[in-house]
Amino acid sequence: MGERLVVIGADAAGMTAASQARRRDRDLEVVAFEMGDYASYAACGEPYYVAGFIDPLDRLIARTPEQFARAGVELHLRHEVTAIDLDRRVVEVRDHEGKMTSETGFDKLLISTGARAFVPPMPGRDLDGVHTLRTLGDAAALRGIADEGMGNAVIVGGGYIGLEVAEAFQVKGWNVTIVEGLPTILSRTLDPEISDQVAESVREMGIEVLTDAMVGGIEGTGHVTGVSIGDKTIPADVVVLSIGSRPVVELARDAGIPLGVTGAVAVDDHQMTGVDGVWSAGDCAEAAHRVTGNAMNLHLGTVANKTGRVAGINMTGGDMAFPGVLATAITRVHGLEIASTGLRTSDAEAAGVDAVDVTVKGGTAAHYMPDSEPLTIRVTAERGTARLLGAQIVGGRGAGKRIDVFATAIWDGMAAGDLEWVDLAYAPPFAPVWDLIAIAARKAAAKAKAPST
Amino acid sequence: MGERLVVIGADAAGMTAASQARRRDRDLEVVAFEMGDYASYAACGEPYYVAGFIDPLDRLIARTPEQFARAGVELHLRHEVTAIDLDRRVVEVRDHEGKMTSETGFDKLLISTGARAFVPPMPGRDLDGVHTLRTLGDAAALRGIADEGMGNAVIVGGGYIGLEVAEAFQVKGWNVTIVEGLPTILSRTLDPEISDQVAESVREMGIEVLTDAMVGGIEGTGHVTGVSIGDKTIPADVVVLSIGSRPVVELARDAGIPLGVTGAVAVDDHQMTGVDGVWSAGDCAEAAHRVTGNAMNLHLGTVANKTGRVAGINMTGGDMAFPGVLATAITRVHGLEIASTGLRTSDAEAAGVDAVDVTVKGGTAAHYMPDSEPLTIRVTAERGTARLLGAQIVGGRGAGKRIDVFATAIWDGMAAGDLEWVDLAYAPPFAPVWDLIAIAARKAAAKAKAPST
Repeated sequence: MGERLVVIGADAAGMTAASQARRRDRDLEVVAFEMGDYASYAACGEPYYVAGFIDPLDRLIARTPEQFARAGVELHLRHEVTAIDLDRRVVEVRDHEGKMTSETGFDKLLISTGARAFVPPMPGRDLDGVHTLRTLGDAAALRGIADEGMGNAVIVGGGYIGLEVAEAFQVKGWNVTIVEGLPTILSRTLDPEISDQVAESVREMGIEVLTDAMVGGIEGTGHVTGVSIGDKTIPADVVVLSIGSRPVVELARDAGIPLGVTGAVAVDDHQMTGVDGVWSAGDCAEAAHRVTGNAMNLHLGTVANKTGRVAGINMTGGDMAFPGVLATAITRVHGLEIASTGLRTSDAEAAGVDAVDVTVKGGTAAHYMPDSEPLTIRVTAERGTARLLGAQIVGGRGAGKRIDVFATAIWDGMAAGDLEWVDLAYAPPFAPVWDLIAIAARKAAAKAKAPST
Repeated sequence: MGERLVVIGADAAGMTAASQARRRDRDLEVVAFEMGDYASYAACGEPYYVAGFIDPLDRLIARTPEQFARAGVELHLRHEVTAIDLDRRVVEVRDHEGKMTSETGFDKLLISTGARAFVPPMPGRDLDGVHTLRTLGDAAALRGIADEGMGNAVIVGGGYIGLEVAEAFQVKGWNVTIVEGLPTILSRTLDPEISDQVAESVREMGIEVLTDAMVGGIEGTGHVTGVSIGDKTIPADVVVLSIGSRPVVELARDAGIPLGVTGAVAVDDHQMTGVDGVWSAGDCAEAAHRVTGNAMNLHLGTVANKTGRVAGINMTGGDMAFPGVLATAITRVHGLEIASTGLRTSDAEAAGVDAVDVTVKGGTAAHYMPDSEPLTIRVTAERGTARLLGAQIVGGRGAGKRIDVFATAIWDGMAAGDLEWVDLAYAPPFAPVWDLIAIAARKAAAKAKAPST
């Protein structure tokens, strides 16, 4: 009889780990509990379902319970783990359908409980028409509203998901307003110089963007009618709260599994928690920043998949260190592409690294090509050494994925002056003869090495 | 009185060097001679002019003689340097307009004579309607034909320029046939497995592609009427010979400036030739491969610009080593993107490096996104170490520039197993959660490290 691995939370991290572990150890019994209605779905695709780009909804489901069963993973949907007993090595599970509670023993445990949408304690948040977008159920509800409507949609929060939901409702014919409490949108990943450019472009698309706009409450009787900001009310037929997400850590915390400085589950580079035989991966766990080494808590599909893979390997006798994150992110709003990786100057300085940055503007193609799109690149480098630390990109089609060159260069510790000379691909439809990446790198190198004033 | 730099050949390399040198040394007299009618033009844009994507032709001219004059560079068009006397430090110059020959002294000399289209000694090559595409004059002539015609265009040579010209004539409504003498098109940069995929896609676009088709001669009386291949004749109203280009080295060779193994001007990493005070850059000069260190002779705008820049710096007291080439190249035919960098397995083995390769197929976006395009990546890595050596990419929109990630990784000596974990950007419109780059890297690492059979 083999050992039993229990996986708590059956989304990207959990099911990647489960599949990986089972593939490596055919004697391992793998049991996964998921409190929701679906496992292993592509949450990142939800805004595109709301927009109607994808149909039907189950195209977002990567694998069904039957498929997992064939792969040797026993998956229980609508089964919530309500407690972990580390002494007795059992989890307590409540079956949402049968309302039964039972216990399941484990030899190895993976905490992959993910994250939930953050909803601040604001008046009116329980009104009809006030939503978040995280689960497939959320997506189905918003798609239904988007399809029937064409009224006023107010998106609270100008992050990546906020922008994607704004685009979705606009595609469906709604008047859309993004309401951001901070002075700039995308403030966690972009410097104001770049995010202001995004906000301006988004406004030109016909999406209203309000910044420095703290929501006082949501108004309505039964159903939402508006969002109050200061002494003004913006009419709203639907409100989507996209203010961020929080790691789901109550189970782990209550069981005595240590949390880290970010509030997420603390793990080492093998995804081991502070408790023997207990691993964690995905949105609920911390991950180390590749450049600073600092703990972060990112809710990104890439990190969930990668840390799940690492956990699955290490839980089955492997020895793989997760090499860290750069918090690389990308999105688009209609034709506008936005991406970032690594550290901004402010992030670097908060981590004790003296940094400079430069911003350059150009095009995605040779200037004489009619399909050249605007491209802005901002690069952060360490003062003195010119080691690349981060980059931000905004521009038209073809702009965004240029961030991967910076991610690769930063990953490997390259200096800006080295990136300048890399033999990047050139043909008129794809870049000027000096790709703007090289120009940005050259200017960053010069600034980083200039005598400090 | 400052020194005088004479530049022979005023295209990308020559004028980049001239401008750079003059910017760094305001006392330097810079005189450039160009035998053609234009300086500093974007040859790579010419197929897009023929296709009608760009108008008028002079959009391809980066800077005029007047602009160079304002920058302190004295540029003489239609002035051909006919001899270099290294003992007397003078060049002999023939003025094509006045038919005068004169001498100009130099303290420093740059050989940037470029390359010319290769035209094999084939019967009928002088018929009307038989063209090459290299100069702006060539482009003007082909555009005139493309505009008036809609007959049969035969493109001899299935390289990058051949494909681009084929697209251009098809855009203009012509029936287009590409005739390639070798078993595969793009044989200098792609393995057959990849280039066959390109050929198949190009055929699906309605462009005929004949391989293993050696042209015996060009037929016609006065004007071309056909191209003979074996005992068959393909009707042709225009023939474009795009069989490659050769470095223009006669002047240098006759002056006793050493050529290298490739037949191009030999230079060190400072663009110095074997003769003191004489530099060379661009298509006429050799460049070292970043991975093998071997001399190559590439005719690429990127290399011309970069080596011109390096020459300009070193001619004016600077000390910059050109860090080499990966022969990165990219093109598109309609929606199909094609790119390559570094070494194929066959290239690696010719250079004495034991290599493996893998080919993976996927999409440019999440599988459920309607605009995901096919993507194929082939990766070459060193056997044992898994050091990345090269990559080839073919796919739809968004595929080609992914080559830059490989170029960056190869440039910095990364192993495939490291690239697998780089924090590449993910969102559904841009990639699957594991970008195919990572999948390709993972498989290449596994194969490179597998025990040799």
